[in-house]
Amino acid sequence: MSSLFNRCITEVMLSHLFSSADYAYMAQALRLAEKGLYSASPNPRVGCVIVRNDQVVGSGWHERAGQPHAEINALKAAGPAAQGATVYVTLEPCSHHGRTPPCAKALIEAGVAKVMIAMQDPNPLVAGKGSASLRDAGIEVETGLMEAEAAALNIGFVSRMTRNRPWTRMKIAASLDGKTALNNGTSQWITGEAARRDGHRLRARSCAILTGIGTVLADNPELSVRHVDTPRQPLRVVVDSRLDVPVDARLLRGAGELIFTANASEGKIVALRDVGARAIVLPDSNLDSGNHVDLAGMMRTLADFEINEVLVEAGRTLNGALIAAGLVDELVIYLAPYLIGDNAQGMLKLPELSKLAEKRALKIQDIRSVGSDIRLTARFCDDKSI
Amino acid sequence: MSSLFNRCITEVMLSHLFSSADYAYMAQALRLAEKGLYSASPNPRVGCVIVRNDQVVGSGWHERAGQPHAEINALKAAGPAAQGATVYVTLEPCSHHGRTPPCAKALIEAGVAKVMIAMQDPNPLVAGKGSASLRDAGIEVETGLMEAEAAALNIGFVSRMTRNRPWTRMKIAASLDGKTALNNGTSQWITGEAARRDGHRLRARSCAILTGIGTVLADNPELSVRHVDTPRQPLRVVVDSRLDVPVDARLLRGAGELIFTANASEGKIVALRDVGARAIVLPDSNLDSGNHVDLAGMMRTLADFEINEVLVEAGRTLNGALIAAGLVDELVIYLAPYLIGDNAQGMLKLPELSKLAEKRALKIQDIRSVGSDIRLTARFCDDKSI
Repeated sequence: MSSLFNRCITEVMLSHLFSSADYAYMAQALRLAEKGLYSASPNPRVGCVIVRNDQVVGSGWHERAGQPHAEINALKAAGPAAQGATVYVTLEPCSHHGRTPPCAKALIEAGVAKVMIAMQDPNPLVAGKGSASLRDAGIEVETGLMEAEAAALNIGFVSRMTRNRPWTRMKIAASLDGKTALNNGTSQWITGEAARRDGHRLRARSCAILTGIGTVLADNPELSVRHVDTPRQPLRVVVDSRLDVPVDARLLRGAGELIFTANASEGKIVALRDVGARAIVLPDSNLDSGNHVDLAGMMRTLADFEINEVLVEAGRTLNGALIAAGLVDELVIYLAPYLIGDNAQGMLKLPELSKLAEKRALKIQDIRSVGSDIRLTARFCDDKSI
Repeated sequence: MSSLFNRCITEVMLSHLFSSADYAYMAQALRLAEKGLYSASPNPRVGCVIVRNDQVVGSGWHERAGQPHAEINALKAAGPAAQGATVYVTLEPCSHHGRTPPCAKALIEAGVAKVMIAMQDPNPLVAGKGSASLRDAGIEVETGLMEAEAAALNIGFVSRMTRNRPWTRMKIAASLDGKTALNNGTSQWITGEAARRDGHRLRARSCAILTGIGTVLADNPELSVRHVDTPRQPLRVVVDSRLDVPVDARLLRGAGELIFTANASEGKIVALRDVGARAIVLPDSNLDSGNHVDLAGMMRTLADFEINEVLVEAGRTLNGALIAAGLVDELVIYLAPYLIGDNAQGMLKLPELSKLAEKRALKIQDIRSVGSDIRLTARFCDDKSI
């Protein structure tokens, strides 16, 4: 599964040739799965379609943790019609008791004849077990139908399961000449309303929004989802080496916000706890000073907190540090059709290069217009840690 | 015609509803016109298709100045079949004796019945005269069919005729974070081979390539067209306030290259003349020092030299000065999928802004992939001088 990252999801290895009907039903299951984009996490987004005699007899999707899985919803909709049917499901059915009973058992009890799976469970501890239990019960099982699409939909869940870190997406809004703010710090608004609205969709699909103390002190942002209908707000996370965050900062108005720091001063930690925030002391022991946050350790900790996708909305210092540490997977750049000039702030503070061969390479995944701006999505391809 | 610039060529005002067949024949004429992309200037690129009884009986295009116009080539191909035919021509036929006899007269003598014209002659001294002489001879004339496409193909000729300055296109190659070179000056090669080849196509369609003395001294570029089959090389033009250009600079190996300077030192001017280059002393009298070149005056002079399209390939200083002076019409930015970081050179030296409202606005015209890079074309929309 981790090879999906290496290949930047441009190729799919098919173990099997599937029919047009197979693709159509799995595409329908993927569309259902996508309904959980803003709600299913920390669980994966999963959809399921049950077909008998070329007719859809039931379908379902997973709405949120604790509620029934997609297969259970689809079986309930199908009722007795599931007997002898073919099930299209975007992720391998579970075979273990979690918050809900195992789906493989329910499919066996319903008497389905065949299960078509887009992708295997990325959790190495359970991968293949659901398929095996279905096969043991005499059910035909095939895996790999629209695997790339299914993996892309759950890229954060896959990342957390296979790499023990979230999928990290960095959002940057800049002028055509790569400037994010004037020299005096003015940055509202470089991009137009459509781009800002699009940015809220990125927030809504993320489990956490990550920013730096510089942005908190300069802009005091809320970093909440607005303009998008979502049942939950992402967790706010701040990198704040010296624990300078004011306890009345707007982004601490949520609950359980995380502040990563290198400063263990008990008084401030308690003051933050009193407003519902949690300081995590995680100095980088590789740096002599011990005055910086261990960014890689922070990402592992976020995975422990079941964070699938992180959206970074920070300034050039934290942006540069995360990229230099190889901790960013995807860059979403909104380019506004303006020129600001060199005396303004750039996108990224990175170590100075002496040769162009040292430049960090990405692969463009997508470009489109968003209002009068351009949105460009690129992924890092030289990440040695993947 | 100048309103075409104001509208950034996004709308077409149709004075008439044309048929599908009309569009098809004019599109064919435009494709013929485009054959002159690298050769027709300083003349416009023009194509002509002659149709009788729904059949193309002759077609032609204008190859280069001094050779027959498109209509003459098409009439020659049609022979007697032109009698009673409909002529599709991308530019209003001329009615005056230039280097060749007037096309309107030839069309009248051939006995054509109807002339469909994409756009009127943009030269205010002759506009409408060709159509009038055709109408006077009893020929039906209609204008405006695919006008925007025809104007776009001759955007430099239109600019020179209506604004007395060339269409100025600025090419910039940068990383995703807007950097054009490392801090140590290294800039070869930020973009890939496909983008560089595409850049040579921009050179080939231009009458002149404009650069600054900084680029000449740093890179000693040839600024010639390579990798593209073209019958001619563009004129090289250098902005060189102090007349520092070495007489053995590679770009002076052509003939008649122009050096715009604020320095009237006779010795250097003669030395340049000896290698076939021409120094034009044009200090900016609006600046106290008189040590800078009058950039607006330079553009007027280039129009006098019959330069239709100028391609600017310069560094951040001249790029910024031209943009600040409102002398750039179009920006072509090649973005390479790399990150270089803020310690590197930016795109444009512009006067510092204190408010984002002062930022220079453009309109994105086109985005496409070129190899592994992105090409973005944008036009200035706030240019008060147009």
